[in-house]
Amino acid sequence: MTDMNRRTATLLALVSPFAIGAAAAQSSEHKVPDMGRGMDAVPWMGDEQIAMLIYPGMTVMDLIGPHCMFGALMGARIDLVARSLDPVTSDAGVTIVPSATFATCPRDLTILFTPGGTDGTLTAAQDPETLAFLADRGARAKYVTSVCSGSLLLGAAGLLKGYKATSHWSCRDALAGFGAIPTDARVVRDRNRITGAGVTAGLDFGLSMIAELRGRIYAECSQLMAEYDPDPPFNAGSMKTAPADIKSAMIEMAADFTRKAEALACTSMKECHKIIP
Amino acid sequence: MTDMNRRTATLLALVSPFAIGAAAAQSSEHKVPDMGRGMDAVPWMGDEQIAMLIYPGMTVMDLIGPHCMFGALMGARIDLVARSLDPVTSDAGVTIVPSATFATCPRDLTILFTPGGTDGTLTAAQDPETLAFLADRGARAKYVTSVCSGSLLLGAAGLLKGYKATSHWSCRDALAGFGAIPTDARVVRDRNRITGAGVTAGLDFGLSMIAELRGRIYAECSQLMAEYDPDPPFNAGSMKTAPADIKSAMIEMAADFTRKAEALACTSMKECHKIIP
Repeated sequence: MTDMNRRTATLLALVSPFAIGAAAAQSSEHKVPDMGRGMDAVPWMGDEQIAMLIYPGMTVMDLIGPHCMFGALMGARIDLVARSLDPVTSDAGVTIVPSATFATCPRDLTILFTPGGTDGTLTAAQDPETLAFLADRGARAKYVTSVCSGSLLLGAAGLLKGYKATSHWSCRDALAGFGAIPTDARVVRDRNRITGAGVTAGLDFGLSMIAELRGRIYAECSQLMAEYDPDPPFNAGSMKTAPADIKSAMIEMAADFTRKAEALACTSMKECHKIIP
Repeated sequence: MTDMNRRTATLLALVSPFAIGAAAAQSSEHKVPDMGRGMDAVPWMGDEQIAMLIYPGMTVMDLIGPHCMFGALMGARIDLVARSLDPVTSDAGVTIVPSATFATCPRDLTILFTPGGTDGTLTAAQDPETLAFLADRGARAKYVTSVCSGSLLLGAAGLLKGYKATSHWSCRDALAGFGAIPTDARVVRDRNRITGAGVTAGLDFGLSMIAELRGRIYAECSQLMAEYDPDPPFNAGSMKTAPADIKSAMIEMAADFTRKAEALACTSMKECHKIIP
């Protein structure tokens, strides 16, 4: 370990063990000496303003996957934003306390983010206050982002019209109803709209965002600290790899949600040419 | 889609969209007709009792990765257990409301689980009430489990003596101080002790637990619903793959925690033969 490395490490450790605890911003000007591979150019400190929507019935993993990565952005401010400061319960029963409301959330954001869910997402996507908040912050945010069916919320707020976007496989095609271009990939970027696929895609999305904001070296440091070296015991995580009977059972299981998402998208944009059964 | 598949799908959809919302248990006796590949033998409904410790300074991804998978166990009860019902704030600022206390948590558990963290974990690992709770429930639990440095808590409660176990790379070796056998793998099982590596290993751990409890088909269904088809944009997630300068910087960054974890392990078991600097 060189003195150079030690200085960087000390800087990092001062701010937060494991680079987590992003609220402790001190400076965006810290200069780290050359350590090879461009470490001197790494923006260790930043001042990003990140707002992550939370709402009843959200899927909490959609939120926490990206948060796990955003949390490594030293100096960034992350708000969990809801209609009020009342605790919000996820679809699987995890209750989270918001840190900001639609009124108190910073106006000019680096990242606006929406997590997905099922019925709770459809309800939120029809809530005028929620849509007004998303449309307002989304109009100025540097990046407008989502994971899983959170893209339905962006779509309902009019933020995906003409943009390629993805979602959970069960409702990706529904995005067309909002005027978006459904795109099958783990993380889809079209200009400043960056959307992730279902649930666990939030980790890949989040790591991509770190690289976008702070560069590859910072992202690799964060990946090692989060020990993100996935090793799923099965290979059924996508429509391309899952066994046929698993796929058909899950498609049927999600069918009601798929129909509701399509109906929502068509209704909200008043441009649907399909007949909803 | 056959009628058989439809009946299963309807059962699943009735309980919860996306198989999430596990509290809605109704029956563990539902019989699903044969759909090939052994679907009739899948235990769609269960009654597992799962307790997940939460404490100030925990790393919330350590908790939510496994919860994402446990939440798919229809009929299971999941408690987030803390000293009191006061909200608990993670190292990166996510505040979660407990659902049970050490006093109200079910006595006989299917799974006892502990998430990790850094300073907060070391503090919790020296809290007599926390250790008494873990030792008590751990003595009877069917599975005693952790992700990341959560294994320090199991070790401090005397639950890993003589067992192979893993942890975050920064504190895996410290487990030896508790009489455990540090083992480098994504998920380590020794009898009923099942421990995951750092942070994001909770998804692999959780999916393994679903297969253990409900079998491979159930696990594959859950994997597809969580779209767990990871695709990290970089390959720096483990000590085996990360570039050398990334590794050395992060080892140094975590060095203070590594030392504290070793000191804790040695002190708590009074069997350390190393001299802590």
